[in-house]
Amino acid sequence: MQVTPVPVTKLIDEFSRLPGIGPKTASRLTFYLLRNPADRAVALAEALQELHQKVLFCSQCFNIAENDPCSVCSNEHRDQSILCVVEEPLDVLAIERTREYQGLYHVLHGAIAPTEGVGPEDLKIAELVGRVQSSETEVREIIVATNPNLEGEATAMYIARQFEGGSVKLTRLARGLPVGGDLEYADEITLSRALSGRSEI
Amino acid sequence: MQVTPVPVTKLIDEFSRLPGIGPKTASRLTFYLLRNPADRAVALAEALQELHQKVLFCSQCFNIAENDPCSVCSNEHRDQSILCVVEEPLDVLAIERTREYQGLYHVLHGAIAPTEGVGPEDLKIAELVGRVQSSETEVREIIVATNPNLEGEATAMYIARQFEGGSVKLTRLARGLPVGGDLEYADEITLSRALSGRSEI
Repeated sequence: MQVTPVPVTKLIDEFSRLPGIGPKTASRLTFYLLRNPADRAVALAEALQELHQKVLFCSQCFNIAENDPCSVCSNEHRDQSILCVVEEPLDVLAIERTREYQGLYHVLHGAIAPTEGVGPEDLKIAELVGRVQSSETEVREIIVATNPNLEGEATAMYIARQFEGGSVKLTRLARGLPVGGDLEYADEITLSRALSGRSEI
Repeated sequence: MQVTPVPVTKLIDEFSRLPGIGPKTASRLTFYLLRNPADRAVALAEALQELHQKVLFCSQCFNIAENDPCSVCSNEHRDQSILCVVEEPLDVLAIERTREYQGLYHVLHGAIAPTEGVGPEDLKIAELVGRVQSSETEVREIIVATNPNLEGEATAMYIARQFEGGSVKLTRLARGLPVGGDLEYADEITLSRALSGRSEI
């Protein structure tokens, strides 16, 4: 016998599809919203609707942005000759929080992971090579700030090979970062040290 | 310098307002939805929009429902002479899952908790008394299935006092339930035993 209204079951199902949210948590969230005034649920709904409508990817650095080029790429005060290559938009945020980096970014949207079927062609690596070649300001340095784990290292090595024999200096964040960890969870001091102690690949 | 698009920050904020979801989880969920096709976020948004639009409270038992009276209250095959009083709609689901209970429900929407400023007048207790008094079928038994914790016990005692000297038998679920626990997390067997071993207050 069905005693739960369909809209309730539907919302529980939708919450359950999110990563890290099981059926129990999904129920809790649904009934929490049900107990609260409707505007709480509606505010969340509107934020969700706007997410893909108003957010785009910068055609230069592939970070998420509201305008193209993004506010970093179009900022004349930033050093155009240095690029920081990261896996995800969240990593850009982590590095910006250190307030130590004044260059531009390049977001790969992942790392090479053969076991998950992610190859170099699935990432913005060709775009990185093209960007460096066609850049008005000569790119002097590429900081490969992929995660300090297996996939991140493999990606860094692959990128280094693309620029082999060229004039661009490739560097890697210092191993102040805990190996096997995830860049976005690093604290600001660790990340600052990793930036200043970066080594050539 | 603001590098995160406003719609992204907004969704992270909205997720963070949900119970048990911190800023880190909120970011993770937001970027997960951003990486996935827009229809994922839109499906969740629509489920949220429909929640309060399509769900109402049964005017008899105050459970959530799509119709008033709800499918339980309007079911002629259920025993109208027995009421099971619970704190939340989720508790109705837990009891329905045992398939052992054939009576009706009454949802209080909380428990007496003086420390949180919740008194008897904030719950559907007066409605319970009125419902028993005006019921066409005489109510023989009220199972007070509030949670086996301090607030639930206080609420059960308060309800018992309202029916003192009357002909209605008041019972409490057997202490097969772990004391201090939460009814909605009980497994079906424990809950079945608690139902069959219920004792008079």
